[in-house]
Amino acid sequence: MSEKEAVKIIPLGGLEQIGMNITAFEYKDNIVVVDCGLAFPDEEMLGIDLVIPDITYLKENADKVKGLVITHGHEDHIGAIPYALKEINMPVYATKLTMGLIENKLREHNLLRTTRRKVVKHGQSINLGCFRIEFIKTNHSISDAAALAIYTPAGVIVHTGDFKIDYTPVFGDAIDLGRFAELGKKGVLALMCDSTNVEREGYTPSERTVGRTLQHLFEENMDHRIIVATFASNVDRVQQIINCAHRTGKKVVIEGRSMVTTITTAAELGYIKIPNDTLIEIEKMRNYPDEQIVLITTGSQGETMAALSRMAASTHRKVSIKPDDVIIFSSHPIPGNEKAVTKVMNELAKQGATVIYQDTHVSGHACQEEIKLIYTLTKPQYAIPVHGEYHHLKKHRDLAIEMGIPKERVIILQSGNVLTLSEDEAKITDQVPAQGIMVDGLGVGDVGNIVIRDRQHLSQNGLFIVVVTLDQYNGMVLAGPDIVSRGFVYVRESEALLEEARNVVLDTLDNCTNNGVKDWNKIKSMIKEDLGGFIWRKMKRSPMILPIIMEV
Amino acid sequence: MSEKEAVKIIPLGGLEQIGMNITAFEYKDNIVVVDCGLAFPDEEMLGIDLVIPDITYLKENADKVKGLVITHGHEDHIGAIPYALKEINMPVYATKLTMGLIENKLREHNLLRTTRRKVVKHGQSINLGCFRIEFIKTNHSISDAAALAIYTPAGVIVHTGDFKIDYTPVFGDAIDLGRFAELGKKGVLALMCDSTNVEREGYTPSERTVGRTLQHLFEENMDHRIIVATFASNVDRVQQIINCAHRTGKKVVIEGRSMVTTITTAAELGYIKIPNDTLIEIEKMRNYPDEQIVLITTGSQGETMAALSRMAASTHRKVSIKPDDVIIFSSHPIPGNEKAVTKVMNELAKQGATVIYQDTHVSGHACQEEIKLIYTLTKPQYAIPVHGEYHHLKKHRDLAIEMGIPKERVIILQSGNVLTLSEDEAKITDQVPAQGIMVDGLGVGDVGNIVIRDRQHLSQNGLFIVVVTLDQYNGMVLAGPDIVSRGFVYVRESEALLEEARNVVLDTLDNCTNNGVKDWNKIKSMIKEDLGGFIWRKMKRSPMILPIIMEV
Repeated sequence: MSEKEAVKIIPLGGLEQIGMNITAFEYKDNIVVVDCGLAFPDEEMLGIDLVIPDITYLKENADKVKGLVITHGHEDHIGAIPYALKEINMPVYATKLTMGLIENKLREHNLLRTTRRKVVKHGQSINLGCFRIEFIKTNHSISDAAALAIYTPAGVIVHTGDFKIDYTPVFGDAIDLGRFAELGKKGVLALMCDSTNVEREGYTPSERTVGRTLQHLFEENMDHRIIVATFASNVDRVQQIINCAHRTGKKVVIEGRSMVTTITTAAELGYIKIPNDTLIEIEKMRNYPDEQIVLITTGSQGETMAALSRMAASTHRKVSIKPDDVIIFSSHPIPGNEKAVTKVMNELAKQGATVIYQDTHVSGHACQEEIKLIYTLTKPQYAIPVHGEYHHLKKHRDLAIEMGIPKERVIILQSGNVLTLSEDEAKITDQVPAQGIMVDGLGVGDVGNIVIRDRQHLSQNGLFIVVVTLDQYNGMVLAGPDIVSRGFVYVRESEALLEEARNVVLDTLDNCTNNGVKDWNKIKSMIKEDLGGFIWRKMKRSPMILPIIMEV
Repeated sequence: MSEKEAVKIIPLGGLEQIGMNITAFEYKDNIVVVDCGLAFPDEEMLGIDLVIPDITYLKENADKVKGLVITHGHEDHIGAIPYALKEINMPVYATKLTMGLIENKLREHNLLRTTRRKVVKHGQSINLGCFRIEFIKTNHSISDAAALAIYTPAGVIVHTGDFKIDYTPVFGDAIDLGRFAELGKKGVLALMCDSTNVEREGYTPSERTVGRTLQHLFEENMDHRIIVATFASNVDRVQQIINCAHRTGKKVVIEGRSMVTTITTAAELGYIKIPNDTLIEIEKMRNYPDEQIVLITTGSQGETMAALSRMAASTHRKVSIKPDDVIIFSSHPIPGNEKAVTKVMNELAKQGATVIYQDTHVSGHACQEEIKLIYTLTKPQYAIPVHGEYHHLKKHRDLAIEMGIPKERVIILQSGNVLTLSEDEAKITDQVPAQGIMVDGLGVGDVGNIVIRDRQHLSQNGLFIVVVTLDQYNGMVLAGPDIVSRGFVYVRESEALLEEARNVVLDTLDNCTNNGVKDWNKIKSMIKEDLGGFIWRKMKRSPMILPIIMEV
């Protein structure tokens, strides 16, 4: 048999729709799914709470699906698990902290009892159908992250997950570079490597460097209450803040729902060590002088409902900002959040607080030199850049070529592509559904593009409703036209305008009568056209116009 | 007379509402206005085109207003001039290029013939009532920027406008540091200095450094068509791009309405030199091989309707992106535009084009060392930081104190504050209206907070309209309830839901009849409550509910 075995790799999200990481690996009757994340809505997705991957392909092949393997506990890798488990019954595999965070979600969705789960240690392997999957220790901005070596009949595929190289991590070991090297010696078919920071030169600094900066800031501000905002999931960051507080004799208050949940889980599982007598309840804060308090809070991204944003807007029920407060943003704004973050900073500064945000964060993703090291160790035959927007993937492509991967063996996939990969060739052989599905309240997928377009239209110029009651026998106007407008112009200032609009509609209706037009759809479209034209000429605006005809 | 003369300084915008720069200087019966800019709407200002300052205070004191003095030609300093001139007849003073750009606006608004204008040269002074105003040469990301020395009975106020220090500008002279020094020797009452880059250490590099980078990029990409996106107003940048094109033997096409307008004005007034046979019409592009073409275009901020965005989305009628194209973003995203810019970059990259955006831009604003130099030269008695968000002003305050200004003499103003300033003291003595006024289409100020809140509500969950026709004599339901929804859920999937909703409303109406409720407002609010509750329980969403009652 000269032809080489081939495996299919199918990213179901995470490429166009950033965040929604989920990839299927398929060989004959075996499918393994890696990660199952959600995305936050784009600006134009008005009213949408979150976006989850379309798993139609997995549902159609549910009997083949052997399990779901998770690389780490960030929302863009675990957030859609409950939605997927409601559709497909599959066991979940993850490291201890990751599983703890997943279990919090399953509990909320009432799925804990019915979901098969297995905690896997770094270095351990699991067998799922014809696949063997090995968890390899990495570093990231959340503890317990893993890369995966996926042993397939076509060869070994190394998937880095999100990672960085941290020689001096705050908790646990450095990334297991030795294992990457061993895999490289034995032969790696393909490397699927994190692209997030591929445009940055050099190395990402160690998480510990942030600890040193924070320690300086704590020492410089001994006489002040200190409020630190950071990502709820960055357990090591919270550990370092607690350490600084402890060393400077301060008490720690943790505030914000997701922060409390994550830190509780991390503490229960032993991923964070809180010295005795350090943590206090927010209600006890008033028993201590301000300078003895450190508040660790959510809201580092300017999210409207997060604790820090509520403090900034003076709507937090338990914490008021004071002029002597020192507020540290231990985070960078995620692209798209810059303005919201700045707004919160301004509000805090206006209340007199000192806001610090420089040198107080490091990334959790590998920069160019780290990525190069992984290529050098694993020596893959193929490079499949993952985790990044298109321009990142493209830059990653250049870097992989520079690292000696032949141009035709660097493959940029789009969501839904079915890549059939063997030692001989890589080919996109099919396309499966992979659009994000919008979740609004309890509705999953019931808000589509037409609804979003209507929301966009309404949001720009508001609406005009025209109601008229007609006689069912002779088509005469019995009541109306009544006009109601919302989101267009303040009503008290617009009575003359509404009167004019009513006259326009009366003319249209006269016109219909005179020309014998009786078809409701025709009457409605004439009202839309005449009234729309009137408003545009008068005000250069295009509200949505909704004619409603009643018959008595 | 022991008491010192006092002058009033009144910022009417530009502090909370970034962009809308306008400041009044008042002494007895004399008011001079400096700048009159517009702001672009915040994300939450749905459907708003732009925001202009509230000039109620100036209107009420129109007889005192002696003139409008402009520092430079950016939209946030000149954009609201036509709106202000429609309310107040005042002469406009500016340098040549700035006036050219203002005249383009006046022409659009049919105000050119009726507006008194005077072009002022750097070094020249004008007398406006009791004030004398001297224009001082500065550097900025648009040519012909000026700082102002405002001679008042209380002393000299130096207003830097937006500025940087460029020892090697592309066009014209370096900033007139000597004049700042002379003013300092004679005595400066207050310095109002640009705060935009006060958080950045060191110096802003010269505009020429960008020219060198561009020249390298042009030489490296001799075989490609090059598309450069930059700010339409950055005439010196466009000059440098044209120079690079000329040196590498390429033809230049200019595309994008604002780019064409600005460059035409700049060329007419001698602020840009275009070598013969370099510029070609976009229609002639097809007569040249791709590698001979440089396209200079708008859209560097990812603005949906700008030329580059349309090229990226394949909706530009005259330019299609090709895989060999090299696209240079000679700009940084303005805060808030990051995601839009990234989206355009991804779209371009997906079409195979190479996108370059590193080291291809410098700021037009002074960094810390430049600001310190201005303080050292002018030695002001008071510091009044301007042009920046609150956290910039606060950082500027620290810097001014570090430069030796006594703490109580560094004054952070908020829009609408009336600062009464003399050698003896600075005091906020009054407050005048200074909220931004929203412009939507032809409507100025007719969209207020209620309208915006309605648009926000509609944008999040759409709306439900409930129409019912009642008998005017007995209150019986003659037709309906008819329910129309938009932006809520796709109609075809929701017929069962609409039927249920109709039943809910029928129950409510029955309820009203049984309980003798006849007041329309009461009926409407019961419909809102019952239907709203039903939808929330069922879907966890809160659409706007609009009950409409007709009577026959």
